[in-house]
Amino acid sequence: MLIVQKYGGTSVGTIERIQNVAKRCVDAAAKGHNIAVVVSAMSGETNRLLKLTAQIQDDPNDREVDVIVSTGEQVSVGLLALAIRKLGGKARSFLGHQVKILTDSTFSRARIVSIDAEPVKAAFAAGEIAVIAGFQGVDEGGSITTLGRGGSDTTGVAIAAALGADACEIYTDVDGVYTTDPNVVPDARKIDRISYEEMLELASLGAKVLQIRSVELGMKYGVPIHVRSSFSDVPGTWVVPEEKEMEQVVVSGVTVAKDEAKITVEDLPDVPGVAAKLLSALADGAIVVDMILQNQSWDGTTDMTFTVPLGDRKRAVEILKGQVPELVGKDGERISWDDDVCKVSIVGVGMRSHAGVAKRMFTVLASENINIQLISTSEIKISVVVAKKYAELALRALHAGFGLHLPPSERGTL
Amino acid sequence: MLIVQKYGGTSVGTIERIQNVAKRCVDAAAKGHNIAVVVSAMSGETNRLLKLTAQIQDDPNDREVDVIVSTGEQVSVGLLALAIRKLGGKARSFLGHQVKILTDSTFSRARIVSIDAEPVKAAFAAGEIAVIAGFQGVDEGGSITTLGRGGSDTTGVAIAAALGADACEIYTDVDGVYTTDPNVVPDARKIDRISYEEMLELASLGAKVLQIRSVELGMKYGVPIHVRSSFSDVPGTWVVPEEKEMEQVVVSGVTVAKDEAKITVEDLPDVPGVAAKLLSALADGAIVVDMILQNQSWDGTTDMTFTVPLGDRKRAVEILKGQVPELVGKDGERISWDDDVCKVSIVGVGMRSHAGVAKRMFTVLASENINIQLISTSEIKISVVVAKKYAELALRALHAGFGLHLPPSERGTL
Repeated sequence: MLIVQKYGGTSVGTIERIQNVAKRCVDAAAKGHNIAVVVSAMSGETNRLLKLTAQIQDDPNDREVDVIVSTGEQVSVGLLALAIRKLGGKARSFLGHQVKILTDSTFSRARIVSIDAEPVKAAFAAGEIAVIAGFQGVDEGGSITTLGRGGSDTTGVAIAAALGADACEIYTDVDGVYTTDPNVVPDARKIDRISYEEMLELASLGAKVLQIRSVELGMKYGVPIHVRSSFSDVPGTWVVPEEKEMEQVVVSGVTVAKDEAKITVEDLPDVPGVAAKLLSALADGAIVVDMILQNQSWDGTTDMTFTVPLGDRKRAVEILKGQVPELVGKDGERISWDDDVCKVSIVGVGMRSHAGVAKRMFTVLASENINIQLISTSEIKISVVVAKKYAELALRALHAGFGLHLPPSERGTL
Repeated sequence: MLIVQKYGGTSVGTIERIQNVAKRCVDAAAKGHNIAVVVSAMSGETNRLLKLTAQIQDDPNDREVDVIVSTGEQVSVGLLALAIRKLGGKARSFLGHQVKILTDSTFSRARIVSIDAEPVKAAFAAGEIAVIAGFQGVDEGGSITTLGRGGSDTTGVAIAAALGADACEIYTDVDGVYTTDPNVVPDARKIDRISYEEMLELASLGAKVLQIRSVELGMKYGVPIHVRSSFSDVPGTWVVPEEKEMEQVVVSGVTVAKDEAKITVEDLPDVPGVAAKLLSALADGAIVVDMILQNQSWDGTTDMTFTVPLGDRKRAVEILKGQVPELVGKDGERISWDDDVCKVSIVGVGMRSHAGVAKRMFTVLASENINIQLISTSEIKISVVVAKKYAELALRALHAGFGLHLPPSERGTL
């Protein structure tokens, strides 16, 4: 088998842990597998380097910042290769430009264009474990680029795709993907298998186990992703193409995102182009608008409500006042906002074939007296905005209401 | 003008100092010069990285150790490029593989084979200051290599040679090359101009201002090297091809090296091949023998004395006992040694045309009652081994004896 293993910063945070990772690699290779390992920087290292650069300038989207920050992974691959050899294994490190992981030139959040798998295959042919720096690439001009926070997940899956690997194992400090946050709901269950689509929704909606782009890549190239713990040997969660059995499970997971804020603009003229004007002003300010709701027209005017990242709420209001005073009022008197909201979502491919999921969700929330402020649906998820104080209560109620504490086979249908 | 500036670890040891270096670069560029800057790792960084690797394994001559250690310079070039831009200058960083500095594959002490000056010229054409990582290169296979301690000097001079630069300025924490160690002889004078040959001898004999290989490269390609302080603007020492006026100066500098030990083997059979046998055994053990003296034969036997680095003395004796017991006696009873010696040398191209330099040297030492144990001469230097306790006394006496406290024009001849 050809297996790509990816280890995050916590898993290589000390020399002892690097030696532990080396042992896992050597053990896997001893079973006759070809192993490529992708590693992040030692935990804390990327922040240390960013702090150094911040003493000179603040903008992280800079060619030179990527030159500096990419050294974190460079040190990790060198140390891991040494540790593997110390255990009697054969290993060779590869940096982004050596693999080579070609990206666009968007420094600090570049996207992978292609990977040259030949150097890694040559390492396999020489009996070596290929130790590959995560998070970094190289652009057409030969400049070092980085892929953004969590980019090592993406490197891992991209390498697996380029090699046609049998699996990409993502090692982390939890032992898989859970039906919801176990810190909030103690009887949350580890999910054994989940589809790419569901994982994408979960990742977008607040579950932080996998970087979204890595899941997109896995889906695009059909790479089976195995999320598991680097501190134990128990199987984790497989992220795979959708399977027949998955549809039997109506809801796979429940998430909550607390870093949202709600903005409402009242008394908007109900004529074409108003929504576009409002949202263009925000888009020009690089503010990402998530849920959007426009009420039924009333007396020729309408209201619009939308959510933005909590940290951008203040700036969003300023932008609206400055850019479209004709819509929001000179002093923004038609704008109101609420920072004390959260977005609770349920995700499941089973929704496609099961009616009544939304009804059950709203019933469960109503039975706890939780008022729903906004609703947004997609093919495989339903999100609602509720007051932030209900976040944990809503999670627990929905988790129980959809029977997620039970094994999938015992959950029954709606 | 096209100027290469090289800054050592102390000169870029803090963010503030990096900003200071950036100002120097921007000022030089503002005068209309094309500037390439070569920088070392921030002081302490290389040792920190070596300590990390030492927690896994001890051998520094390893491909992966170079991968790790080279990150020190990578961080420096990124930070300096940022600092230059913050001051309004234009800058771009280059790593060893981007320049590209092609070396052999002797990890941890690779030698430069060639440099591709085109990327740097392209940066100049774009009005940019080229910020180049010292100490590192890349081998034929694309692996990162490093050039050994002080390797950034070599990078600087090699870049200057490849670019056909008008000068290579080596910035350091002293303001030039002195006639001797100013800590020992307070009236030591800064040397204004010195020949490559003399600088090579001084560097070999204990003056630590420049890495020897950088001087060799400067001599080979005729690069004028300007050794000066990064903390002031006073002119330093120019290392240049030999000039007519230099010959007027009989002695340019006096040095002492204290890390030497003397080994003597007595009662050696006076037949061909004995010296070769002794020295081969040591060479096989990678012990560098410096001065070698064989006495006149006496009764068919002879004595041989030589010096080795102090740290290798013990191992040298063990090797001789183990490898050539027929020459040194089973228990090494014919070997004696002295760790309390030092090597005092005078250097000057003027020796070529002036007789009597040795006589003056021995007279000066005799007048201080300093006994000479070994003598070794080359075309432009004379070295003597004396008891270590006389090191400072010998330096001061020779410095005064050859009038080195006076300006060159007032020293007179012998």
